[in-house]
Amino acid sequence: MFPKRTIYLQTVSPEEAVRRAKSVLERERLIKEETIASQNACGRVLSRGVHALHSSPTFHSAAMDGYAVNARDTFAAREGHPLSLFPEQNCFAVNTGQPLPEGCDAVIMIEQTVQKDGHILIESPVFPWQHVRRIGEDIVATELLFPRNHLLRPWDIGALLSGGIWDVPVWERLSVRIIPTGDEVLDFLDRPHPDKGQVIESNSQMLAALFREKGCLAERMAPVQDDPEALHQALLSSLHSDSHLTVFCAGSSAGSKDFTRSVLEKEGEILAHGIAVMPGKPSLLALCQGKLVVGVPGYPVSALVCFKELLDPIITWLMHKEPDAKNCVPVELTRSIPSRIGMEEHIQTAIGRVGNKLVGTPLGRGAGNITTVTRAQGIIRISPSCEGFNEQETVMAELSVPETLLDKVLVCIGSHDNTLDLLADELMGLPEPVQLVSGHVGSTGGITALANGACHLSGMHLFDPVTDDFNFPFLKKFLPELDVTVINLAIRHQGLIIAPGNPLHIQGLQDLTRVRFINRQKGAGTRVLLDWKLTQAGIKTSSIQGYEKEENTHMAVAANIMTGAADCGMGIYAAARALHLDFIPLALERYDLVIPTCFLQDPRIQAVLDLLASPAFQRRIESQGGYDTPLTGQIMQPGIKGIS
Amino acid sequence: MFPKRTIYLQTVSPEEAVRRAKSVLERERLIKEETIASQNACGRVLSRGVHALHSSPTFHSAAMDGYAVNARDTFAAREGHPLSLFPEQNCFAVNTGQPLPEGCDAVIMIEQTVQKDGHILIESPVFPWQHVRRIGEDIVATELLFPRNHLLRPWDIGALLSGGIWDVPVWERLSVRIIPTGDEVLDFLDRPHPDKGQVIESNSQMLAALFREKGCLAERMAPVQDDPEALHQALLSSLHSDSHLTVFCAGSSAGSKDFTRSVLEKEGEILAHGIAVMPGKPSLLALCQGKLVVGVPGYPVSALVCFKELLDPIITWLMHKEPDAKNCVPVELTRSIPSRIGMEEHIQTAIGRVGNKLVGTPLGRGAGNITTVTRAQGIIRISPSCEGFNEQETVMAELSVPETLLDKVLVCIGSHDNTLDLLADELMGLPEPVQLVSGHVGSTGGITALANGACHLSGMHLFDPVTDDFNFPFLKKFLPELDVTVINLAIRHQGLIIAPGNPLHIQGLQDLTRVRFINRQKGAGTRVLLDWKLTQAGIKTSSIQGYEKEENTHMAVAANIMTGAADCGMGIYAAARALHLDFIPLALERYDLVIPTCFLQDPRIQAVLDLLASPAFQRRIESQGGYDTPLTGQIMQPGIKGIS
Repeated sequence: MFPKRTIYLQTVSPEEAVRRAKSVLERERLIKEETIASQNACGRVLSRGVHALHSSPTFHSAAMDGYAVNARDTFAAREGHPLSLFPEQNCFAVNTGQPLPEGCDAVIMIEQTVQKDGHILIESPVFPWQHVRRIGEDIVATELLFPRNHLLRPWDIGALLSGGIWDVPVWERLSVRIIPTGDEVLDFLDRPHPDKGQVIESNSQMLAALFREKGCLAERMAPVQDDPEALHQALLSSLHSDSHLTVFCAGSSAGSKDFTRSVLEKEGEILAHGIAVMPGKPSLLALCQGKLVVGVPGYPVSALVCFKELLDPIITWLMHKEPDAKNCVPVELTRSIPSRIGMEEHIQTAIGRVGNKLVGTPLGRGAGNITTVTRAQGIIRISPSCEGFNEQETVMAELSVPETLLDKVLVCIGSHDNTLDLLADELMGLPEPVQLVSGHVGSTGGITALANGACHLSGMHLFDPVTDDFNFPFLKKFLPELDVTVINLAIRHQGLIIAPGNPLHIQGLQDLTRVRFINRQKGAGTRVLLDWKLTQAGIKTSSIQGYEKEENTHMAVAANIMTGAADCGMGIYAAARALHLDFIPLALERYDLVIPTCFLQDPRIQAVLDLLASPAFQRRIESQGGYDTPLTGQIMQPGIKGIS
Repeated sequence: MFPKRTIYLQTVSPEEAVRRAKSVLERERLIKEETIASQNACGRVLSRGVHALHSSPTFHSAAMDGYAVNARDTFAAREGHPLSLFPEQNCFAVNTGQPLPEGCDAVIMIEQTVQKDGHILIESPVFPWQHVRRIGEDIVATELLFPRNHLLRPWDIGALLSGGIWDVPVWERLSVRIIPTGDEVLDFLDRPHPDKGQVIESNSQMLAALFREKGCLAERMAPVQDDPEALHQALLSSLHSDSHLTVFCAGSSAGSKDFTRSVLEKEGEILAHGIAVMPGKPSLLALCQGKLVVGVPGYPVSALVCFKELLDPIITWLMHKEPDAKNCVPVELTRSIPSRIGMEEHIQTAIGRVGNKLVGTPLGRGAGNITTVTRAQGIIRISPSCEGFNEQETVMAELSVPETLLDKVLVCIGSHDNTLDLLADELMGLPEPVQLVSGHVGSTGGITALANGACHLSGMHLFDPVTDDFNFPFLKKFLPELDVTVINLAIRHQGLIIAPGNPLHIQGLQDLTRVRFINRQKGAGTRVLLDWKLTQAGIKTSSIQGYEKEENTHMAVAANIMTGAADCGMGIYAAARALHLDFIPLALERYDLVIPTCFLQDPRIQAVLDLLASPAFQRRIESQGGYDTPLTGQIMQPGIKGIS
């Protein structure tokens, strides 16, 4: 029971790994030329310079609608002394683009003529070649239209056809074969229901989309089991195919079932195993039979980093293209990010403009969590020699979205509620869409964000037993200087989430000492409410098994009950209902949005307020179950709790 | 013979035209929803918010390779006092991603263990949930993965599949029908040889490529004649098809054969005819049977402006997408640009970084010249209230290429020579490609550019009869302060370009007085040489018919001879040969590259010098005919002419 494990080789920087790949790949032999129709060549790269076959225009032509003339016939015209020209004798009606009649060398714009008694009057002379497009003015036959390795853009297609170039020599499209691996993966094509120990294979599709976005052909094969022989066959099949590049998804790490390295060693040479970047470390590059083979880590965020740091620069070079420019902007951090010396770290970060600064909220580091990427507007790169950054420090972030989008983002940091999802969805349906970027840090985390000017609004449901009021006592204590407006989002039902049918016969708090509990994190409003209820009931937290196990959202608590990892947790009704669980109500609580008053006139905040006031949105909130909306959209005042 | 003409309506700003289109188009009725497989949805926009069906992970799993344990079994371990764990009893080998065995709640990294005598030693305790990915850590079932109108990116595909979403509701792809029109257009599919009065139809393909680049489906129909009935049928056919948008290429102007407007009026309402932008003015927008119909001007640059200013914002809105951000940079102008009050003007501009500034060379304004776009790195927008800009003024330019590319550009302003095309082609073939951006302003224009620090190098072939030397006398006179290095590009054969077979029996300069001549522009080296030869021969320029007709390049001169527009012109042998014309040699001339010495160590200039020194490139120069290369790549000195 001590399976053999591959222990990592020395990690190298991504730049070094890319350099090694470029130095051994014979680009000119690997990527062939092909000839394709010019009209289909947009986005392709010319393999040779292209010279025009035809001139454009091929004749002197009218550049304006009007009358073609010989300029010397007009020299006598001047203001106040109109000159008569005679149609079909010394002036000829022409439309833009038509050839000049024999003997003409200029065009008079129609606007500068007067028609009278069958002739044409002009009051100023014209110069030779006025309003005439001359032969070859645009393109002269034989001239170089585009040099080799030029990336063709839409307007280039127009120039090619105008120059009589019907076909162009281009580099063939880079073809990639993607092979998912793993005993535990389920093929998404089977529309599976994952069981314990199984995961839906999705990295191959993310990678295929990334490759296609870069202009590659990407073919995804059926998943291969963790079996050296099957992997070897899959490798050989790819090497013998037309693919230029083979990608194995997962199996490149140091686990006992990670066979990618040993399989690649049979057919070629390992170029790099392990890069000094987190996530992304277990990346593997090999040269097999003249082709590049890449082992991409199994975690989705690692796979993405492997693509961006290794695959993208290599395929860009193979395609004779220029790398995309990175757009970096300074952001102020809403929390600190410690980092390990010796490895570059990439931190997915939610970014938005709040007031006159960009604020960045580092999202979780879990390499397995693809939603950290989908929720991020950029990454913060921490160099190997840096120990990290402090809260409120301004650092550079590399954007993954257009910078203009940051101005359309509404940053919401605080407690999480499903109603915020509804709000996010509705905001994107407005004529001027607003993107709600939310950081789930609990109600007290939201207070910190408000204090630091790091958000436009904060979701809060902090109950103060002393004053029997929500939110205001905490705002008064921790944010005495900040002028905020408190708007109710909804009234929520809080209670115990339990398994369907209540098999353990849980009746209330008193039963928590005999079941496995799952808790919310410290600072969360739900946790405050629970602790208060426990104190009232005289129950010691140490007597509750699992009290120290924390989840960060209601839904994560509910998921624990659903899967049997815990028997009971405190949360909102909506979470219980969403996962078909039972629910024992304990209390109503006010969930408010706290908005710095200076942002109240911001059109994005106004859009939120308009939505909250709309009966349709209130109905949508209530339809989730476990919410009441009598106060929704109303401004709250201290000391007026508003609920029983 | 006074055909009816449509005189323009009042022009409107592009913003106003777009506003009108948006206000009458019923987006939600026009663009339907459809359901497609998630893995094919990258680049598409969700029509509804999407909630996860599965959690990810669906089970507690190992986040590292190592041993799964129950944390409380490890609490006794400490440094110097290793604790033994027993495989398959209280510790279990796990690979990353595998489910935790029953009863385990933590993972010890393999690197922090020692195997000894069949058991596992650890020297520090682990905490509960250490190196464990918990249920729903990434995605919790029912949570909102993406709001409506979210543009799906590659990583989003991963999140959709991980969340068990196999199909997604998206807005259908925008479908565009493009109809080229005009009696004079030739269908490029026929691979035509354009005759006088004919043009190769290419705008439809540029537009199709532009639409496709934005994610639309674009269908291009066969060209339709300038016939109201045929145009009407084409319109009806498009309105009855699945297309959302119909584009007529050309026919939207005010010429006697521009029927687009009258045809559209039969089926709907004109929204705007004429926009206050040059080029692009004759754009036409109409609403016909609930669909948008656009008349795009016939000139390619006008068509492009019409797309960018009208079509792009409208289709972006129809697709529920965000407009692309514009990247604007300050550039110093190498020449003045006068502009008309009342119209916005777009000036195609060649841009590159010279020293520590970006310099911009306005390219020609001809709306018919697509090569002004293909050669430009951006545009300068001159507002309707601005009378233009002065030479050396710094103005904002809107880039059409990635900004990083500007650092790879080598700016060459001066005389034009075909050998520069060869150089441009070779430079793009280097491992670090260099883009040669050239402005054709003649040799003396090059001196001005050098004086203004507006270029990296300048092509020059100025002969000074007084000193019997090339280039140096002019550099000494006009650039006494500038330290330049002069490198020979090639020796060129200059002479008279004449029709094949020499039908007019031209023998030399003395015959110019009896034929139709075509000249080069003032300041061009060829013009200087001609004037000197004429003076030597005692021939008055006023005796030469066509002496006042100027072209800006050798090839344009040759094209005039080829088409019979002129009988004879002065130019280089290469131009005559390229168009199969005859040539009467008059002189050899030195064509040099003048490089400010401060740029000599620039890697891009070094690349040029390396190429010039290579025998292969010298052979390529000579293979054009009319060039000698004994001096190519050598540094020239004043007073040493080097040729006879």
